[in-house]
Amino acid sequence: MSPRTHIVGAGLIGASIGIGLTAEGWSVTIEDNDDEAQALARSIGAGDALGDAQPELVIVAVPPSAAAAVVAAALGRFPDAVVTDVASVKAPIAAAAHATGASSRYVGSHPMAGREVSGGLGAQGDLFKARPWVLCPNGAAEDAVALVARVPEALQCDVVTMDAEAHDAAVARVSHAPQVAASAVAAALGILDADDVALAGQGLRDVTRIAASLPGMWADIARLNRAHLVETLDHIIADLEEVREADDIGEALTDLIDRGRYETARIPGKHGGATRDWTPVTVIVPDTPGQLLRLLAHTAEVDVNVEDIAIEHSPRQPVGLTTLYVLPSHAPDLVAALERQGWEIAAS
Amino acid sequence: MSPRTHIVGAGLIGASIGIGLTAEGWSVTIEDNDDEAQALARSIGAGDALGDAQPELVIVAVPPSAAAAVVAAALGRFPDAVVTDVASVKAPIAAAAHATGASSRYVGSHPMAGREVSGGLGAQGDLFKARPWVLCPNGAAEDAVALVARVPEALQCDVVTMDAEAHDAAVARVSHAPQVAASAVAAALGILDADDVALAGQGLRDVTRIAASLPGMWADIARLNRAHLVETLDHIIADLEEVREADDIGEALTDLIDRGRYETARIPGKHGGATRDWTPVTVIVPDTPGQLLRLLAHTAEVDVNVEDIAIEHSPRQPVGLTTLYVLPSHAPDLVAALERQGWEIAAS
Repeated sequence: MSPRTHIVGAGLIGASIGIGLTAEGWSVTIEDNDDEAQALARSIGAGDALGDAQPELVIVAVPPSAAAAVVAAALGRFPDAVVTDVASVKAPIAAAAHATGASSRYVGSHPMAGREVSGGLGAQGDLFKARPWVLCPNGAAEDAVALVARVPEALQCDVVTMDAEAHDAAVARVSHAPQVAASAVAAALGILDADDVALAGQGLRDVTRIAASLPGMWADIARLNRAHLVETLDHIIADLEEVREADDIGEALTDLIDRGRYETARIPGKHGGATRDWTPVTVIVPDTPGQLLRLLAHTAEVDVNVEDIAIEHSPRQPVGLTTLYVLPSHAPDLVAALERQGWEIAAS
Repeated sequence: MSPRTHIVGAGLIGASIGIGLTAEGWSVTIEDNDDEAQALARSIGAGDALGDAQPELVIVAVPPSAAAAVVAAALGRFPDAVVTDVASVKAPIAAAAHATGASSRYVGSHPMAGREVSGGLGAQGDLFKARPWVLCPNGAAEDAVALVARVPEALQCDVVTMDAEAHDAAVARVSHAPQVAASAVAAALGILDADDVALAGQGLRDVTRIAASLPGMWADIARLNRAHLVETLDHIIADLEEVREADDIGEALTDLIDRGRYETARIPGKHGGATRDWTPVTVIVPDTPGQLLRLLAHTAEVDVNVEDIAIEHSPRQPVGLTTLYVLPSHAPDLVAALERQGWEIAAS
């Protein structure tokens, strides 16, 4: 029997959770202090109006800056319910819950939806499917943790349990500081004219991809996670200054690249394992519909699984370079098969 | 009639140019002060031994740190030849050529091969095809520039002409500093344990992708382009410190993100135009061979051209998320078609 669940906040995250749990047969109610958002969420199946029955589980899905106060209020307003929230910074909210004296009923959540998602009208039940959903129990009762865990389980997320402070330190390094650094690299393009910027290759496009995202909740996130973010920025600044100040800038950069390489190897690739050493096979692909499909069809004929793809469009030319990342043992067969089919291999 | 061409340096770049020009019917000779490299290059068709006939064009393809001296020597050794080089920093080499008094016969080149390429055995004639090839005339005679330009034309590159100093300032911003910043972001992961690093999403993977590359020639490049690199790092450091020191870190970060967004929009996407506003359609894809092919086949059925693809493997789950970037006007049809075929759309 699924818990009677009440969602406070009918934005993208709250509404998506509501739709997803409703689809799994849960009894869900939802509210928002914005009447229009509340009406929209109810109309798209994200939940009903709260009735007389008290909820067993309350999910606070409000902007990060409001989460601490709304969680504290929810713990008082629903004295028998377990409360969770979905903000992307966890320690300040855990502290607010602790201050109420009811923190045994509070479990922090951080559902890690992808960067491509934004806009309140985009709510959908499987927004979090196959993504990590972090739980921060931080002293909550065991049955409270088990109850909250049923949400990511129902939504088919990858449940990860960790301490709130450790979570905030980690997301500062894997998410918040990378955003700041990517934006700073992009901002440094400001003195270049268009012809100069046109020298950009795939490397710059990769580094600055997240710099194209909307500011959205970043201001809130930076304020709430300031200490960890500043600590991480200090680490990055110190490394940049070490290169900048070095007597031998070449040696200093080699040292930094070596340290960076060591760490990138720890970023998980597939299924929680370390990044595999995939072999890139770069193919020249005419930039017309269907070519990528032809390429992958020829790839499939030799039973090679494509682990990743990078597509680089060529400035001013009607062809692009597509790099297929495959297991090293598959690369020679793939190259031979593609050449047999008439593809030009630019690098492998 | 193609110019008699002599290549000094039989590493990946020199040998690849030799193979490419030979394939176009050019008469090419090649030498290397490493006997083994020289023999290998000659055996794979990168050029013959230099005979009695003096070359009309000399291409210096030695490591960046040696390029200035070898260019100056080549201008003296071949007094009737036009000389170019392929180092990725241009002003110091132009200065060395100028100091010989023979700079009317020197034109700098920077063929911008992709980041995936490395290793001397990987030489191939179309290494540079469809990539930018920068020419820096810097006071060379017009016929010298025209002669050197025949190389990228023969190799089907995208020829870009610019001043050597402007080139170096530009590559510091679009290539060298982004490498340093990506490595610094990666190095900052050092304090995290494996579970924490596992929170990494596609954003971190994008930012740190080039941080996984080998140090290679970066030490040389940083030394030769130190002034421009330091200036760019100072810009980046100042932006990071502005965020770090701000009274309101949220406001400062929003400002930086806004500036970064403005600049990323100037990075060319397809065919020299500004990055298009592609619409992402994210699909849940079982992580087994052939699934990506099926997905693209269903995409092709509705005549939608895929502009870019991002594949995100899900830690610990046998599915991945694949994002197809398409023209906004194509997105609704694509989503409908994929859903009809039974695909789960995670976001669009």
